Amino acid sequence: MRSTMMDAPLLVSRILEHGATVHGASEVVTWTGAEPRRMSYAEVGAAAAQLAHALRDDLGVTGDQRVATFQFNNNEHLVAYFAVPSMGAVLHTLNIRLFPDQVSYIANHAEDSVVIVDSALIPLLAKVLPQMSTVEHVVVVGGGDPAPLAGSVTIHHWDDLLAGKPTTYDWPELDERDAAALCYTSGTTGNPKGVAYSHRSIWLHSMEVCMPEAFGLASTDRELAIVPMFHAMSWGIPFAAFMSGASLIMPDRFLQGAPIAEMIAALQPTKAGAVPTIWNDVLGHLATGSSLREAIVGGSACPPALMDAYAERFGIQIVHAWGMTEMSPLGSVSRPPAGATGDALLAYRDSQGRFPAGVQARIIGPLGEQVPADGESVGELEVRGPWVTAHYLGEEEPDPEKFRDGWLRTGDVGTLSADGYLILTDRAKDVIKSGGEWISSVELENVLMAHPAVLEACVVGVPDERWDERPLATVVIREGSTATPDELRAFLAERMPKWQLPERWSFIQEVPKTSVGKFDKKRVRSDYAGGALEVHTLD
Amino acid sequence: MRSTMMDAPLLVSRILEHGATVHGASEVVTWTGAEPRRMSYAEVGAAAAQLAHALRDDLGVTGDQRVATFQFNNNEHLVAYFAVPSMGAVLHTLNIRLFPDQVSYIANHAEDSVVIVDSALIPLLAKVLPQMSTVEHVVVVGGGDPAPLAGSVTIHHWDDLLAGKPTTYDWPELDERDAAALCYTSGTTGNPKGVAYSHRSIWLHSMEVCMPEAFGLASTDRELAIVPMFHAMSWGIPFAAFMSGASLIMPDRFLQGAPIAEMIAALQPTKAGAVPTIWNDVLGHLATGSSLREAIVGGSACPPALMDAYAERFGIQIVHAWGMTEMSPLGSVSRPPAGATGDALLAYRDSQGRFPAGVQARIIGPLGEQVPADGESVGELEVRGPWVTAHYLGEEEPDPEKFRDGWLRTGDVGTLSADGYLILTDRAKDVIKSGGEWISSVELENVLMAHPAVLEACVVGVPDERWDERPLATVVIREGSTATPDELRAFLAERMPKWQLPERWSFIQEVPKTSVGKFDKKRVRSDYAGGALEVHTLD
Repeated sequence: MRSTMMDAPLLVSRILEHGATVHGASEVVTWTGAEPRRMSYAEVGAAAAQLAHALRDDLGVTGDQRVATFQFNNNEHLVAYFAVPSMGAVLHTLNIRLFPDQVSYIANHAEDSVVIVDSALIPLLAKVLPQMSTVEHVVVVGGGDPAPLAGSVTIHHWDDLLAGKPTTYDWPELDERDAAALCYTSGTTGNPKGVAYSHRSIWLHSMEVCMPEAFGLASTDRELAIVPMFHAMSWGIPFAAFMSGASLIMPDRFLQGAPIAEMIAALQPTKAGAVPTIWNDVLGHLATGSSLREAIVGGSACPPALMDAYAERFGIQIVHAWGMTEMSPLGSVSRPPAGATGDALLAYRDSQGRFPAGVQARIIGPLGEQVPADGESVGELEVRGPWVTAHYLGEEEPDPEKFRDGWLRTGDVGTLSADGYLILTDRAKDVIKSGGEWISSVELENVLMAHPAVLEACVVGVPDERWDERPLATVVIREGSTATPDELRAFLAERMPKWQLPERWSFIQEVPKTSVGKFDKKRVRSDYAGGALEVHTLD
Repeated sequence: MRSTMMDAPLLVSRILEHGATVHGASEVVTWTGAEPRRMSYAEVGAAAAQLAHALRDDLGVTGDQRVATFQFNNNEHLVAYFAVPSMGAVLHTLNIRLFPDQVSYIANHAEDSVVIVDSALIPLLAKVLPQMSTVEHVVVVGGGDPAPLAGSVTIHHWDDLLAGKPTTYDWPELDERDAAALCYTSGTTGNPKGVAYSHRSIWLHSMEVCMPEAFGLASTDRELAIVPMFHAMSWGIPFAAFMSGASLIMPDRFLQGAPIAEMIAALQPTKAGAVPTIWNDVLGHLATGSSLREAIVGGSACPPALMDAYAERFGIQIVHAWGMTEMSPLGSVSRPPAGATGDALLAYRDSQGRFPAGVQARIIGPLGEQVPADGESVGELEVRGPWVTAHYLGEEEPDPEKFRDGWLRTGDVGTLSADGYLILTDRAKDVIKSGGEWISSVELENVLMAHPAVLEACVVGVPDERWDERPLATVVIREGSTATPDELRAFLAERMPKWQLPERWSFIQEVPKTSVGKFDKKRVRSDYAGGALEVHTLD
């Protein structure tokens, strides 16, 4: 039996129209260091129509052409967020922090036709533009000198383009499963990979972001959106703000602790979202008595001491959110269950939280079998749902390293509790597969580094004839201290199961690091394989 | 460009699985007058699987067969809410309060195969069952005597059916646009008309119900669901509860003020939803210091004095919601905008509120043209969106009296403000169409009834050669008072535009009423047409 419901597609243009009319008096405010720049949502709606007219009539954008942004979080980036998908084109948010050859790779892979760039980012774009082979137009926002961009592209000025254009647009009726926006993940190996969000997935994800179990956005909120709009769509907050009527505060390029604390004092956000590093930077600058009640933290786990500091000194609750670009990005949020208090409450707070109905989750153990949600059985987290990607852009078949039977393999390892809470402990590639069981390298490292003589410890899996893999412990001894492999193994043995204890030990001068300062485990494994490490093997 | 997102359908079975696992410890509690009956959401999930097995294996339910419920709000009704759509069948909630011939008409029109009935409702079902031509099975919940149901149907007992059945079920992958549930509207004229909600519309509506701008349901909430589950799906609260993890409190047949106040004291809901009559009944019984923070009121506007009483005496905010069975049912909710205070705040509170992104609204004026959202231009409200019906069940073409160009004509007349607030003043059929302008009969009545000599006043439109329609005022004079048509018109003239003043006046003994106590305007118009009224015509 077919339902009698209307066949109304879930389109970004409807979110735009809703925000620009019902919540037309809500506003987006961009920090400038001086007087903030304000636009009402009604004005954003008008400007989005003008931009769409300009893209279509002046730049010739048609169909599903890609329009890229190379911008900070600001009013004009918000206008582009709505104008481009609403007109049927595809918004591509370029990540300004990637290596230049990654940026041009991405622009070429997506076949971007247009790039919208903030004046302040002209020098950065100028470095990569010559390698962008499909870009024909660049739109410059603000008054900077566009000369460095000169070459084979046509340069336009945002204000000139929009001036005099009609402030309404007859948005097309699209298929809700068409692509609306593109975002590339910057994996640690290989080229970045594209994820194409649909109008439908953006709609459903926006509703989720607004739900109380997630960010709980309401029209009475003012959300400080610190997460870059070029990073996983700023966690979907711009779209969710137009859906709920929450006002937006945009930091533009002012992402240091001091100006963010100033924004909080001056513009009175009720909620905010950022990575832990930012919250750490802000802490020393924040004034008491701010309106901020809640800060969402994602990207990595927040140190409990930082959460305590915000709660105790400012009455600000820090809430963990976990997700991935591949997930639009919202997965789980660590809201405690009703009635939790004391240590249990803290444990819930420190977890990665619970999943919404739109994200189904399962834990796959070392043998490829689903393990129970009992808070103890460890495995790789897999997810699926209407705002999770099924494959990467341009892949003919889903990559089996990242997808399995219609599920996304997150590459994160941990447990799910009986009451639905996720606790992540390792990246899958850092787990040591020993005789059908998994050993957490991170756990071994943490215990080793608690030994007074150990400055750094990096544990990796190395090939073993009998057990497939066994842990190799590489250890940097603190200056002036001494310790033997036997002593360190005895120290571990008091705290870890016997079968997890490393046989192989190597004392090194320094753990090799990646460009972002993480342990370079690939390098450690290749050093071992190449015989570059002096290894002591215990019985 | 197609998106890369997973093609994951929005199915009721996913809402069930989510609630039964992630929020498995949340609970539904049914009031009994004695010890409440509790089930965890995990237990609801297990019972839903058992019921689905029973319906399929024992009763032979296949495909999209209709399974009807004839039940109060209780645990078993909740189990049926999830089991029937999840297995691919269609849940049909029969309204126990309709006239018997309407109930049987609906069951026959829907071709119900099975009826699940509460023991307490056996006598009522027994009256209509012989006229239900497609029902083959009746499932009795509870220990009542099923003898009155004996006849051509097979009688089953809920507990016996479920006993020993597997507690999991391999829910089928359905099309999200398939019908999940059926609800009939009981219009004032003609036969009831069916609305078939889809899995998709239930999903989107459930997310909306959870959003802070709507009911704001969270896992920490305990929602007292007073609105019957046979009336517009209890406003979608059962599905939204499983989506958010909010616990449910079910009143079963105890719908009077005293037991509801008892439930509130004993079971500590945080939120509740009901029609104004119920809140009026509860007021005198409610104890102070309850956990209830917010009560949603729908069905009709809540008297401001009642809202004040709840706010002042109990700190309970009453919030208006407006919707229709045709809208799943949620339309607008009267949450005030940020910063509203004083009289403005009260005006927002008394309005019908703002629409969500999922419901587009427009006002159509007397000449069929869209009028501006300026808070002044009056017309009929029309809506559309993914949880609004496109037509009634079985209609080949949408009825033009109820649908226009893909929009639902709500039959309600009012204004939309520039900031999105709806204020309804009349039913469209009670508006007087005079020379291309509309006159509100309700407004004339309210002003007339403020005259000290007037006990009741009922104003209807009657045919007029020059103006198409003009108002006829029928007035009941208070005992011991007197007034002439000229005096009453002079009283009106001080408060209303001249062109709206009635020329035709009739003094009557009593305004005829409908079975539910409303003015019977159809009767007044036919009395006038038939010459049964003595009419004074002023110049």
